[in-house]
Amino acid sequence: MDTFSKRLTDTVKIKKTPVMVGLDPRFSAIPEVFRRGISPEDLPRIARAYHRFSFAILDIVAPLVACVKPQIAFFEELGPWGMVVLSDIIRYAHELGLIVILDGKRNDIGSTAAGYAAAYLGKGSAWEADSLTVSPYLGEDSLIPFINVAEKRGSGIFVLVKTSNPGGGMLQDMKEGEVSVYQKTADLVEQKSAEFALSRGEKYGAVGAVVGATYPQQLEELRQRMPHAWLLVPGFGAQGGTAKDISAAFDDDGLGAVINSSRAIIFAYDRKDYAGRFAADKWELAVETATREMIAQLQAETKAGRL
Amino acid sequence: MDTFSKRLTDTVKIKKTPVMVGLDPRFSAIPEVFRRGISPEDLPRIARAYHRFSFAILDIVAPLVACVKPQIAFFEELGPWGMVVLSDIIRYAHELGLIVILDGKRNDIGSTAAGYAAAYLGKGSAWEADSLTVSPYLGEDSLIPFINVAEKRGSGIFVLVKTSNPGGGMLQDMKEGEVSVYQKTADLVEQKSAEFALSRGEKYGAVGAVVGATYPQQLEELRQRMPHAWLLVPGFGAQGGTAKDISAAFDDDGLGAVINSSRAIIFAYDRKDYAGRFAADKWELAVETATREMIAQLQAETKAGRL
Repeated sequence: MDTFSKRLTDTVKIKKTPVMVGLDPRFSAIPEVFRRGISPEDLPRIARAYHRFSFAILDIVAPLVACVKPQIAFFEELGPWGMVVLSDIIRYAHELGLIVILDGKRNDIGSTAAGYAAAYLGKGSAWEADSLTVSPYLGEDSLIPFINVAEKRGSGIFVLVKTSNPGGGMLQDMKEGEVSVYQKTADLVEQKSAEFALSRGEKYGAVGAVVGATYPQQLEELRQRMPHAWLLVPGFGAQGGTAKDISAAFDDDGLGAVINSSRAIIFAYDRKDYAGRFAADKWELAVETATREMIAQLQAETKAGRL
Repeated sequence: MDTFSKRLTDTVKIKKTPVMVGLDPRFSAIPEVFRRGISPEDLPRIARAYHRFSFAILDIVAPLVACVKPQIAFFEELGPWGMVVLSDIIRYAHELGLIVILDGKRNDIGSTAAGYAAAYLGKGSAWEADSLTVSPYLGEDSLIPFINVAEKRGSGIFVLVKTSNPGGGMLQDMKEGEVSVYQKTADLVEQKSAEFALSRGEKYGAVGAVVGATYPQQLEELRQRMPHAWLLVPGFGAQGGTAKDISAAFDDDGLGAVINSSRAIIFAYDRKDYAGRFAADKWELAVETATREMIAQLQAETKAGRL
């Protein structure tokens, strides 16, 4: 069985882009054609709308990118109906050859962490995602169950290290002596990923790190600090991160990082910088255009051009 | 509309106990009668078994305790089938008059955090829990959306502050100058809960804290540091916390803390210290006995006796 890191590497190389599309459906933001006649309280019908919308997005982006990142929160928001739809979206993304990184930021300890890992990671799990985002507040023993399951099932995790939000530094930047909270987290990620990568003779391991595009200096520092970890970089586009900001995320082959964009792609019809460019019924063309533009931009302005 | 804190206070007073029962079903641990003939891969049938098992537990403990804490991980582990069952369990617990604190340790930022809050908190949400556990790694701006929704809907959150696991200290105990990560988190919890409590003329606010029973010294310190926050105390019993360890969690009226026990109650038939005491078909009597014993113990050995 191939490792998650090998599959991610292969797929990024085939698609020749590190662009990842975030599936963050929100009722108030999806194109009007999906909302028509549905009350904002009618969860089963909204779930059906998210289903149609997400499948349409997947059809558009699957030929262009390597991976998608469904945000579980927006499906949980619809109750069990949303979870049924999420399961079907993951399955369809796989049918289209996409790698699915679920954004759930799960964290717990012992058998409960093992429960989440069994739920989400890899073939044979209930949701069969390729990877899951995980939060490290509970420490090393909360991450080990995730890592064990991920390595065994050829899947991966991405640990929150330095997040893209303005308040992320409140705890993450706290420093004991010379080492900050995010650095200590990064060191654990690197240690675990290096062990696994070296044992397989691969460059990257199963434990990646989430590092926001909005902190370019830390992104460069963390690329150096975690040479064996794939980086998942959120915050590009809508949150303000630019191609220049994320250029340090890649290794010399243009690998080692996937760059996420959610709103700026899936709700591209509504982008201010696209004002007047796409009619309401051309929302699919807007999605395709935004995806192609981001791919081209990263190709031109970062080492992703070497892919 | 009553606040979450008032409802929790009232219910704890009526039941005269801070004991909270954790619903952590695991296939390998539920009584044999529920497992019979089911393959460990048959998720829909396991979900049905969890449904029957959890409803039976609720019937037993509802007359005795104020609140229950379903652990979402074990339901997510079963895919959409588990989530349907979880939804029904929450509804039934409410019919029995129980307060439902969902243990999901969710965390995210901005509209995504608002998505989780809208999903889980209060009447009108998809899951209609009374409260949800939340992880603080992403900082203050990740907690605000949860707090806003909780206060508006008469529900609450419990923020992870100092967790019960051995490795919890890796990040939580890191210290910048005089202040540790868990203390900084505690100060934010206290600030937010105090603001809300004072504006309502109540003693406790909507933002509580998770503080493990396994660190009695920090429990005492944190009770002082967060006078306006309800504490959710895990780690009693199976994880090693004793009545003496958690006695500092209560205020002088025996309020301000709920003490969770999961495995030692719901799988009491299998407890080593009960060996030979309950026949396999007497698992319900074991649950009732374990619950009554924990209630009696906290009544005798802590300020909960003043309830």
